Amino acid sequence: MRFSPLLDELIKSLQVLPGVGPKSAQRMAFALLERQRAGGRKLAHVLEQSLDRIGHCRQCRTFTEEEICPICANPKRALGGQLCIVESPADVVAIEQTGQFQGRYFVLMGHLSPLDGVGPEELGLDRLADWLAAEQFEELILATNPTVEGEATAYFIADIARSHGVRVSRIAHGVPIGGELELVDGNTLSHSLMGRKAFAD
Amino acid sequence: MRFSPLLDELIKSLQVLPGVGPKSAQRMAFALLERQRAGGRKLAHVLEQSLDRIGHCRQCRTFTEEEICPICANPKRALGGQLCIVESPADVVAIEQTGQFQGRYFVLMGHLSPLDGVGPEELGLDRLADWLAAEQFEELILATNPTVEGEATAYFIADIARSHGVRVSRIAHGVPIGGELELVDGNTLSHSLMGRKAFAD
Ligand SMILES: [Zn+2]
Ligand SMILES: [Zn+2]
Repeated sequence: MRFSPLLDELIKSLQVLPGVGPKSAQRMAFALLERQRAGGRKLAHVLEQSLDRIGHCRQCRTFTEEEICPICANPKRALGGQLCIVESPADVVAIEQTGQFQGRYFVLMGHLSPLDGVGPEELGLDRLADWLAAEQFEELILATNPTVEGEATAYFIADIARSHGVRVSRIAHGVPIGGELELVDGNTLSHSLMGRKAFAD
Repeated sequence: MRFSPLLDELIKSLQVLPGVGPKSAQRMAFALLERQRAGGRKLAHVLEQSLDRIGHCRQCRTFTEEEICPICANPKRALGGQLCIVESPADVVAIEQTGQFQGRYFVLMGHLSPLDGVGPEELGLDRLADWLAAEQFEELILATNPTVEGEATAYFIADIARSHGVRVSRIAHGVPIGGELELVDGNTLSHSLMGRKAFAD
């Protein structure tokens, strides 16, 4: 015990947050107690409410406290017939921030990982298949991560989509805009070469 | 609104934590919802309890949920008659971790800062004077920060201590152990020169 028991417990509990070790947890605990008591109380309340009420969208599986998330509930998002497959709700945010996509999402909440017991069922792929059967999509965009698992998951889902007659695309991978070739890893550079397009394109 | 309202509120509430901006708050919210629901619930509960119950030690002003903190309550800490003045509870932790100090502390919870309305009363200096009057200390060690405000606060408290006939010392400032002279700022180097000791000391 370094402090009083309750303060020790607070410092320990704060370490459940990603990227927060003993040192920053201590700094957080002191800051809350010293000058953020109202904000801290609000955080405790909102956190409890969130854990009680936030679940997954019944249609796209992203986080929401409603039955259906705001994106799925927006009829305009269905107009183009595009469905974008991502691994996590954070990916939805990243894509929304580009302002380049007006369709809907399906959030896997992970990727295929047999060793960790994550199979098609855990990713909700049966529900995705039902959705593809119930609604005629124009295009399914695979935006899983460019990792071994993300690629394997993309291939698996591409098969499902094709069996429903839906056109499938994969987001482009390559040298980041503004990036320098010599600083990019070989794997990315290979992708960049293989994915080359005619210059006038 | 980028997510559902409650999720937006959670991300906003998390930003009350020091060093947590919108991006890391989002990452924290998702991590809690995805795989730390039990830990998050625990955090909400402990945080609420802490804000309700943790106040200041009646004697030394550090954080504790008791009337008197464990250090003040330990009769062994009174034996040497040493009292160390620090600005914050985090400083108590830092000094305790050195294992070099067996006395008691008085925590100012800040430093003199007239422009911010922080005077002797806010730092509990009347209570410190009462303590110095009630108990005969051997030594009062000033461990406020080596900043303009910390120095001014140290001078002010030194006067109080001397008026009670208590010997006063200030922790040494200088080149950090393992530090390189050329990397230390000039002010620290000046302190280090002025605070020099005979080599055989
Ligand atoms: Zn949805
Ligand atoms: Zn105390």
